[in-house]
Formats: sequence, structure tokens, C-alpha cells
Amino acid sequence: MPIYKAPLDETLFLLNDVFQIGRYNNLPGFADASPDLLEAVLSEAAKLCEEVVQPLNLPGDKEGCTRHSDGSVATPKGFQQAFRKYSEGGWMGISAPAEYGGQGLPETVTTIVGEFLASASMAFAMYPGLTQGAIAAILRHGTAEQKAAYLPKMIEGLWTGTMNLTEPQCGTDLGLLRTKAVRQADGSYKINGTKIFISAGEHDLSENIVHLVLARIEGAPAGIRGTTLFIVPKILPKADGSLGAKNGVFCGSIEEKMGIHGNSTCVMNYDSATGFLIGEENRGINAMFTMMNEARLGVGVQGLAISEVAYQNAAAYARDRLQGRALTGAKFPDKPADPIIVHPDVRRMLMTIRAFNEAGRALVLWTALQGDVTHRSGDDQAKIAADDHMGLLTPVIKAILTDQGFANAVLAQQVYGGHGYIAEHGMEQFVRDARITMIYEGANGIQALDLVGRKLPKDGGRALQAFFAEVQGYLKTHGDDAMKPYVGPLGTALGHLQQATMWLMTNAMAKPDNAGAASSDYLQLFGLVALGYMWCRMVEAAQAKLAAGAASERMNAKLVTGRFFMERMLPETSTHLARIQAGAGSLMELPAEAF
Amino acid sequence: MPIYKAPLDETLFLLNDVFQIGRYNNLPGFADASPDLLEAVLSEAAKLCEEVVQPLNLPGDKEGCTRHSDGSVATPKGFQQAFRKYSEGGWMGISAPAEYGGQGLPETVTTIVGEFLASASMAFAMYPGLTQGAIAAILRHGTAEQKAAYLPKMIEGLWTGTMNLTEPQCGTDLGLLRTKAVRQADGSYKINGTKIFISAGEHDLSENIVHLVLARIEGAPAGIRGTTLFIVPKILPKADGSLGAKNGVFCGSIEEKMGIHGNSTCVMNYDSATGFLIGEENRGINAMFTMMNEARLGVGVQGLAISEVAYQNAAAYARDRLQGRALTGAKFPDKPADPIIVHPDVRRMLMTIRAFNEAGRALVLWTALQGDVTHRSGDDQAKIAADDHMGLLTPVIKAILTDQGFANAVLAQQVYGGHGYIAEHGMEQFVRDARITMIYEGANGIQALDLVGRKLPKDGGRALQAFFAEVQGYLKTHGDDAMKPYVGPLGTALGHLQQATMWLMTNAMAKPDNAGAASSDYLQLFGLVALGYMWCRMVEAAQAKLAAGAASERMNAKLVTGRFFMERMLPETSTHLARIQAGAGSLMELPAEAF
Repeated sequence: MPIYKAPLDETLFLLNDVFQIGRYNNLPGFADASPDLLEAVLSEAAKLCEEVVQPLNLPGDKEGCTRHSDGSVATPKGFQQAFRKYSEGGWMGISAPAEYGGQGLPETVTTIVGEFLASASMAFAMYPGLTQGAIAAILRHGTAEQKAAYLPKMIEGLWTGTMNLTEPQCGTDLGLLRTKAVRQADGSYKINGTKIFISAGEHDLSENIVHLVLARIEGAPAGIRGTTLFIVPKILPKADGSLGAKNGVFCGSIEEKMGIHGNSTCVMNYDSATGFLIGEENRGINAMFTMMNEARLGVGVQGLAISEVAYQNAAAYARDRLQGRALTGAKFPDKPADPIIVHPDVRRMLMTIRAFNEAGRALVLWTALQGDVTHRSGDDQAKIAADDHMGLLTPVIKAILTDQGFANAVLAQQVYGGHGYIAEHGMEQFVRDARITMIYEGANGIQALDLVGRKLPKDGGRALQAFFAEVQGYLKTHGDDAMKPYVGPLGTALGHLQQATMWLMTNAMAKPDNAGAASSDYLQLFGLVALGYMWCRMVEAAQAKLAAGAASERMNAKLVTGRFFMERMLPETSTHLARIQAGAGSLMELPAEAF
Repeated sequence: MPIYKAPLDETLFLLNDVFQIGRYNNLPGFADASPDLLEAVLSEAAKLCEEVVQPLNLPGDKEGCTRHSDGSVATPKGFQQAFRKYSEGGWMGISAPAEYGGQGLPETVTTIVGEFLASASMAFAMYPGLTQGAIAAILRHGTAEQKAAYLPKMIEGLWTGTMNLTEPQCGTDLGLLRTKAVRQADGSYKINGTKIFISAGEHDLSENIVHLVLARIEGAPAGIRGTTLFIVPKILPKADGSLGAKNGVFCGSIEEKMGIHGNSTCVMNYDSATGFLIGEENRGINAMFTMMNEARLGVGVQGLAISEVAYQNAAAYARDRLQGRALTGAKFPDKPADPIIVHPDVRRMLMTIRAFNEAGRALVLWTALQGDVTHRSGDDQAKIAADDHMGLLTPVIKAILTDQGFANAVLAQQVYGGHGYIAEHGMEQFVRDARITMIYEGANGIQALDLVGRKLPKDGGRALQAFFAEVQGYLKTHGDDAMKPYVGPLGTALGHLQQATMWLMTNAMAKPDNAGAASSDYLQLFGLVALGYMWCRMVEAAQAKLAAGAASERMNAKLVTGRFFMERMLPETSTHLARIQAGAGSLMELPAEAF
């Protein structure tokens, strides 16, 4: 059985020492979140994830979800009890407004708990995760009545939520959407259509499910600007809030898929279901997009979460598994063999995962804090800057944390050798579960196009310029000897990113294919620079703690791991730059039939 | 359902135009293999793989193997009939000596058919693959009586074979082996012990299974130099060749694993089983190693095979799936959307796979031909050179073709978006199946250590020097304008490999950890140079054919795909060099407890 321990110390180091969360005390909810309270809250979350949720992950994968002939779906054994504990602990609404029953703590706390939960069981974490996404959408776009009707029940965990976009003919290109909505005399709509790949579409964890459904109102314009968002409850609530009649929405089947077997991925059939408009007519895509930035950050966190738990297991196995001898001679001559952690190549795999996880978590928290500023600050300038940051970094985080999270799950599995391929150790499940994160909420190629095609040019490149200015400013003010081994390589990598940006400006305007051909490499290059910057920030904080007399193995390890990142991971920027500068030529030359 | 078409034209281009197989006509079996005969034979193989085997792959994964309470194992529906067709077609012994019922064709033909078969169904292909490995071992190390007793039945496909090495406490480090052999008065041995991860250990495809079992003779020295190889038949043959008594070997259970569900991976219990010495006492590892080079080449071919079939499906999907519009404006304005192959980033994924597959196949055939020289040439000099080549290239091929084969299966799955995660399209099966190739027959980290620690220094570096001399010689004689875009980048990459080699010579003697820390990157760097060289050879042959008036889309595509490789894949060599030169420092600094 896999192990898991939530990275509490790491998280508190980032919050308190690297990002100095106290500086955000002017925002609502932050002053309440003192270091002591944060530690207490996160310790509780850690306990729930480690003791209640994590033990369900492996058996939940094996058992999977079961659809009965009446269309109901059973989740794996234990999921109900765990979901109840999660809800009763108040975790669903930890960052939600107090007026709807939430705790009002920073959204950053939800992000952190989301990481712990997804490490413990990604399949399980998706149920609350999707509900929190639906809560955010209703908070942002719902009427006062809708908020009052849905939010308290959802925050209590009595009702859960979903997001219904995809149809068989329509994935990335939502303009191809066919699900129909017809306005009724009472102001509601009749919804008809089929949605696929609906996570948590039907299950037995809650008494009601609130579907957010993208559909096309009869007579609406074709394409993406003719889509509207609807609330379609599985059971229609009565005026007094109690449950009324069953609505015309059914789970037609559960998809057989590679992983996340504990989460029910449903084909949902809407058969004259009653839906309620949320947000504006024909502006459904805008409502989706406000949710999507957060959902994408959440998916990035899933990638990180799997990478973290996979690392912990691989490290434990490498310390325990006796096989062969160190290249420099037996380290444990009294044992039949040395533990495989003596081997540089095993350490290469472990350090690669670790150097990524620590910086990836920093990148997530840095950005989550900006999310809080966006939603809670009263300072317009600060809000704009934070929103710019979110917009720019979200596709980067989504793609690199999931690409690398998956790659790291594969590396961690490799540390186990043949045993990694066997189900009982759980390593192969991490690989199968992590795989979907590169695909859903916009496949990573779409993230790259979003970054290059939309986020870079937005507002005359304001967000990118602010990012460059911050990193350059940091490099200028941190050139001392202790920081040189870190800021030196970061400067080189930033130079590559700037060259790549310049190349895009020169070559992609007239030939958009050059932007498309460069997009994935540009995103990876951007991600490496962002991670490198996080490493500098962490090393700086670690050096300060060490200088202040904190004799800490963990702070020493930060300096070494940061060096590993600079020496062995950051140099990839040069390859990305070379690929970008190669242009679209050899990609676009062959006719489609030649493939 | 996935599609598959064996790459017949590609293979014949490599055999006839690139490697000019006619030049090997002095070797036994080659003169018979005229271009016409080769085409006929390979067309037959293609037909069998496409029509009989491939349709079993997806259902076979779903059904898996079933162990009954008596220890017998049922393979998925259809495997028996397909195996019979394979055997009756003479494919098992296509390269085996005529005196035992084989066809005597080059072993290269077996390698090619092995690729087709593993593309069609890797799980199925493992049954004949392991049998061919056992045939090779008995041919090389068996007595005349053993050959007569086993080979004809195995070549006929009536009996199959396995390889029994791994035990729970003993994977890479075979010196930890515990399975015991005790000599009996009649010269046979009693074998006792437990073996795990035994592919095709028990099944219903053959009337007998010939297990090759590594064990330790009572009183043998500890460690790897006390291990001996035994033939342990599931059913003991009588003197007349007919089947006699059941031997003391049983399948204890089938492993639940990530993929290759159609192949039975067994725990094998040896309970006073009767075994027969093969090869010399306490030299079992030598016998294993002669098999292993070929087995490792075969596993590399599996990686390539999955990459090929994954590519074919991804390319077909990209041509068909309508979603979004080209960045340069609608290409098919009459359709609701353009096929996704219009997108540069989709092409990036497809071209990456394709550029790898074509060069990977070349690398395999180049090396397989050297294998034929090793085994069949009468010229000692030629044999030594070919053996050097095999020894040097085998770990490289095993590791890069499986690392990249897996990565390519993931890329191909990505082209499918969400549909790639759903079982029915078969793309996720390719990922799960390919994953094991990076692990078995020596995990890829072990291949890297074999290359750097054993193959480079062997015979004063003779093999490496020969490789360098060949590539350098080629670069010198192919500097014309048409070849410049190819030999230029190859020259740079070769320079990186030479710098890396120099760095190893300078830094790894005194500090072996520097070799271990560099090994995986050195192997990848080596692989890129070898693939780059293959691209030059292919481009040269394509240019010659085009110059000779062969107006061929396929030859034009070679020039474009080769350019893609040079521009976008080969530049990775610089990152590998940087990592190698970083040394072992940041890897080895942390204490084991810090992980």
C-alpha cells in the first residue's frame, strides 16, 4: 500500500518565509489566518487526507464506480463516509463567504488542501473539487435567489456540482455545441442533448447534483457566441429548499477509462430537463472562462499532487530496497546488498521529481495568492496586476505541472523496477491517474496556444512585461556570492525566454503557424524560467533562515536541490529556444495525406 | 478499434536502399533472401499481423488471462487460433536452422516480423518472442541431445519457452538469487524456489512449456558467479519425444499489472522440479547474457512497434477529427470545422513520433544485420566488428526505443484529447503496454550503466572508436550542399558526444559516481547521435532515388522528416551534455534520510 504524508513544513515555509503571507493581512480573511491558525487548519486537513482518504485510493481504483440499471451510480466502498467527514469538517467551504456557511479563509487555503486531497486520492478529490468549481460559478454569476437556493447546500456538502461542456462532436471547439435550450413560459428552459466525459456526473455522495450545463438557446447565433450556461439540478428544489421532483437528466453510462476509476465519468443525457439561466444569454462562454482559470490552476495542482505522493513512495522504496552495491564500494557490507538510493541514477530520478515539486508548489502558492488579491483586494491597481499574473501563469501552471507531474509519476514508477508495474504497489495507478490532467480542462497544447495567442499579446503585453520586470529586478538585486549559483543560470534562462519572445514578435505576426509551431516549447521555456525564479526565492529564504541560526537539514537540502535544478533542469531552455527558432517550416510542409 | 498497417515499404526501403542487404549475400541464408522473396515473406507476415493478430489486441487486453484453481491459465479468446496460424506459417523458426525445422532466413527477418507482430499485439507477440529467446539459448548452449529433444518441437510451436530469473528479493542483482538446484544420481537436478514476473509462464497455447531457470547449485559460490542455467520442462519428455509426467512446476498466481494483460505474467513455484543443466555449472549468467543482447534488442523493437501503431492511429484521427479552424483561416469552410491536422502543434506531436520511428527502425535493422554477421560470418575480423557494434548499440537501442516509444504512445494519446483516455479507442492501452518495455530486460538505468561502465571501456574503447570513425568518415565524405542541412547538425551532435566522452574519461575514473550520474544522459546523447546518423543515411538514399527519377511522395517526406529531426530533436544533445558536465555533486550530497 502506498504511503502519504502531507508536506506541511514545506507549505508553511512557502507561506511564511518565501511569500510572507502576513503582507496580505489587509485582504478580507487573511488577518484571521495567522501562522498559528494556518498551521492548525492545515494539520487538520493533513490528518483527514492521510488517515481517512488515502487508504481508499488503491482499493477505490480497483473497485471503480458501478452504474446500476436505474442509472444510479455507486462510488467505491468508503467514499461516502470520507465525503461526509470532509463535508462535516467544513472543508468544502473553507474559503467560501460566511453568509452562505463558509469559513471565509483565503482561497489559497483551498488550493493547499486541494493538493493534499489529490495526493491522497485524486479520484476522490474530484468530487469536492468540481463542487467548489460550481460554487465559484454560482457565486460569480448567480442571482441572489440562486445563491441562496444552492450555495448553503453545496457548501454543506449535501449537494454537489458538475461542469457539462463536452459533447461527442465538440471538445476544444465549444462552438460546435448542439445541446438545445428552449425557453418556457415560466422563464425556465427545457434542455435536450448529450454530454460526455462528465466527471462526478452521477454518484451516491450527495442527495442532489447541481449540473452547470452549456447549451444553445433556440435561435441563438452559431458558434461559441451563441452558448449559454444553465443550472440543471438532478432533483428540482422546491420553493422551501426541500427536494422536489426528479429532473430529466440521467447517466447513460460510465466511461471505461485509463484511470481515476474511483470517479464516475458519465455520459449525461438531458431529456427535456428543466434548466435555469445563469449569467447572460449567449455569454455562457464568459461564465465558463471565469471558472476555467481556477479549474486549470486546480488541475495543475493535481499534477503536482500526484508527483508529490509518487515521490514519497519512490524515496521510501529507494531507501529500503536492497539490490546491488554502490559504485564506490559497499555502503552496507553487513547487508546482502546496498539500498538502491546509493546509486546516482536512482538519485537523479528522485532529485528530478523533488526539485520540480518544491518549485511547482511555490509557483502554485504564489499564483493562488494573486487569485486572492484578484477577488478580495480593494486596490484596483493591485487587482489588475494580480489578474494579469493569474491570466499569464494559469496556462503555464496547468501545462507544466501536469506534463511534469505525469513524467514524474513515470519516473517514480521506474524507481520501483518491475514492482512498479504491479498494481498492488500503487505506482502504476499514479501514472494512470496523472495522465488525464494533461488532457482535461483544455489539453496542454491548448494551454500553449492560450499563452502565446491570447495571454502574451493581451493589453499590449502588459502581463508579460510585468513578469519580466519582476524577474529582472530580482536578478539585479540578488547578485551576491551566495546567490550567484542560482541567479546566474536563471539570468541565462530568462535571456532565452526573451529571445524566444522577440522571435515570436518578429516571426509570428505575418505567419501565425510560427506561433502555433512554437507554442508548446514557449510554454515549457516559460515554465522553466518561472520555476527557476521560484528556486531563487526559496534559496534566498533558506539562506536567511540558516543565517538566522536555524540549523535545519531541510534548509540545507533546499540549497542542494536548488543547485540540482539549476545544473540539470534549467539548461533545457536552450533546446526549447532552438526548437522555437526552427519555425513552422518542417511541420507544415507535408500534405495531410502523407501522415 | 485501432488500425494497423505494417510498414512494408519503409522496411524494404531500409533493407534495399539504405543498407543494401545484397552486400551480405556471402552470409548463409542471405543469398536465398532476394528482394522479391523478402517482399513476399514480409507481405505474408504483414497480412497475418494485420488480419489475424491485431483484432485480438483490444479485446485481449480487456479479457486478460485467467488462472484456474488447478494452476492452469487461459489466454484471451482467439489467442490459441492466432498462435496456431503463426506456428503453422513457419514464423517461429523463420531464421532457425533448417536441420531443426527452421527456414534459415536471416535473423534480421525475425526482427522485422517481431516489430509487425508487436505492433499488432505486444501481449500476443511475447509468447513467440520468449520462445524464440529460449530457442536461441538452447541452440547456443544446449547439447546435441537437448537440441534434438527441444528445438524441433519449439520451432514447430508445439512447445513454447520462458526465461526465469527474477525472484522477490532479486531483480537487477542476480547475485541475490536463492532458487536451489540439487544434483541427482541420474545427472539431473531437483529445483526448488519461487520465480516472479515470468512472462508466458503458464498458458494454453502449447502442449508443453520449456522453462529456462537460473538457480544455484547446492554448495556453489555466493553471488552471481554461483548461478547455473537449467532446462525445466513443464511436462517431462520421454525418451521417444512424447510427453511424459507432469514436472514439479506450477503457476502460483498471475500478477495484476498495468498492461500487457493478454500475456500471463506468472509467479512460478518450483517444487522439487526436475531440471537439466544447460551450459556450464556456475556460468549461468554467461548463458543468460548471450540471450540478453538479443532479448534487449527485441524489447527495443517492442518500444518502436508501439510507437508505430500509436502513430498510425493518431495520424488517422488527426486527419478525421473536425475541431476548430486553422490559424491561417479555415481550410475546409464547407465543413463545420477543420481536421485537427491543420494545427502546427498537432503536427509537432505527429512529426516527433514519425521522425523517431523511421530512424529507430533504421537503427534496429542496421544492428540486426550486424547480429547476422556475428552469428553467420566466416570472417573473424567482420565478426569482431559486428559483435562490437551489437554490444555497444544494444543498451542504447533498448533504452532509447523504449523511453521514446513510451513517450510517443503518450503523445499519440494526446492527439486524441479526452477520447485518448477512454479504453475503446485503444490509445491508453498502447501507453500501458509500452510502459513495461522501459523496465524489463534490465531497467533503462541499468542499460545506461551497462553502456558507460562496461561497453565504453571494453577492449580499450575499440567499439566506441569504430562508431566514431564511421560517423566521422561519413560526415567527411557527405558535405555536399544537398546533405549540408543534415550532416551539419549531426556534426554538432557528434561533437557533444565526443566532449561528453572526454569528460567521462577525465572525471569518472577517480570518481565512479560521476559515471553513474552521467550514464542516462550519456545514453540519450548517444542515441540521438545514432538516430541522427540514421537520418543522414536515409536522406542520402532518398536523394539518390529522387535523383534517379523516382517521383515519390514518400521520398520527399523523408527529406522533410529528416529536417524536422535535425531542427527539433537533435538539439537536445546540448542539454544532455550540460547535465553530464554538472557531475555527481548535487546528486550525492544529501543524506539518504533527507529524501
